[in-house]
Amino acid sequence: MRWKCTCAYDGTDFDGWQRQPGGGAVQNHIESALTQVFDFPLQLHGSGRTDAGVHARGQCFHFDAEWLHKPEKLVRALHSILPTSIRIKSVKSVSDDFHARFSVSGKRYLYNYYLGRADPVDDRYVWACRDLPLDLKEMQAAADRLLGTHDFSAYSATHGKENDPNPVKTVSRLQLKQRGKFIRLDAEGSGFLYRMVRSIAGALYAVGRGRLTPDDIAEILESKKRTHRIVTAPAKGLFLDKVFY
Amino acid sequence: MRWKCTCAYDGTDFDGWQRQPGGGAVQNHIESALTQVFDFPLQLHGSGRTDAGVHARGQCFHFDAEWLHKPEKLVRALHSILPTSIRIKSVKSVSDDFHARFSVSGKRYLYNYYLGRADPVDDRYVWACRDLPLDLKEMQAAADRLLGTHDFSAYSATHGKENDPNPVKTVSRLQLKQRGKFIRLDAEGSGFLYRMVRSIAGALYAVGRGRLTPDDIAEILESKKRTHRIVTAPAKGLFLDKVFY
Repeated sequence: MRWKCTCAYDGTDFDGWQRQPGGGAVQNHIESALTQVFDFPLQLHGSGRTDAGVHARGQCFHFDAEWLHKPEKLVRALHSILPTSIRIKSVKSVSDDFHARFSVSGKRYLYNYYLGRADPVDDRYVWACRDLPLDLKEMQAAADRLLGTHDFSAYSATHGKENDPNPVKTVSRLQLKQRGKFIRLDAEGSGFLYRMVRSIAGALYAVGRGRLTPDDIAEILESKKRTHRIVTAPAKGLFLDKVFY
Repeated sequence: MRWKCTCAYDGTDFDGWQRQPGGGAVQNHIESALTQVFDFPLQLHGSGRTDAGVHARGQCFHFDAEWLHKPEKLVRALHSILPTSIRIKSVKSVSDDFHARFSVSGKRYLYNYYLGRADPVDDRYVWACRDLPLDLKEMQAAADRLLGTHDFSAYSATHGKENDPNPVKTVSRLQLKQRGKFIRLDAEGSGFLYRMVRSIAGALYAVGRGRLTPDDIAEILESKKRTHRIVTAPAKGLFLDKVFY
């Protein structure tokens, strides 16, 4: 029996999503909780990894096991074992041809900038940029140049070759919104290369500060080569918001 | 020379504001950082305590010491020692008759309710109530009954006698606002008794669920006696937002 789960976590204290030999990753914690509940070693399959420090409101994974009680009872059992910084939001049974990674049709990420020094409460979840104005209109104009289907190698940390054999992705939404000192980047697409959202967030920040232009952003995209002109934005500002199937 | 400081902290991992014999309180951390920077034992005076788990965006304190450099340099020195969950927002020199506690003219607190199970990221800063509707209009009507100058003994944890010799306070603002699943209570007044904001937050929740009426809220106030009909709302939903002088 296959189960699809959605979970949320505060990435601050974890070594990312992906199982680590020493434990400490979100996947380690969830697999260990599943193993305790089912009383045999269980492995799960995530929709993809998130880096150390990255948060999630809607990470998905699946696992195979027999569970004869209600799904809510499984959630309660897992929550009694998991740290409070990892919560299971839903569990439902799916057909055996569902795969948390291979069935993904798209993902949504959010990236939070903060203008100035953030309070400790906000600081865990934002990139606290210096208190200087960002040209939001230019940033949005640059973001628009990245929409559509492209080889995004220039906007990934490893040229998109290590984790994903296909560097061509479709980005359907890159929307910036400011509220007070917070600026949120809403990124939606068919898929994202390793560190792609953080690279785009870093590039748009450079545009906001006037160091790059929307034309530069398009040119860098076409070059298909990562450049030092782009800085990867810090992990803690990033949220995996939703995985679409 | 007297210095007035404003600070913010994520209360999750601290034993409250007030200095504890074993360390672990926010005050311990700041005094220890000051002592390191000035190289002699320094004590500070806060505007008042916050309980374990309560957060602050604008706690204030003062201390006396000679500092010949710019205040910003002091902030940097303290930040190199303090945990990132405590940040100094401002330091300025004040006259010797300023006292962080006795000069207070008012305080503003915020209390966050969340309707349903909150994600780990939100859960640190809200009271995650069950996913049931709250009657906001009734809650506001009840809150309005608490405005003005009253003996608030019924809305404090120790009848206001232990920490504050005067249980009569003036509450000038109790405003509820909903945004999505978040409800925020904005509480402003001349001063608040021990656990007063959390007691009010708990009482208003009971009104929202239909267990108490605005009339009950007024009646409990007049009784000047704490009752089991009121539950103290959890600490983690509370923020000390601003201290007025």
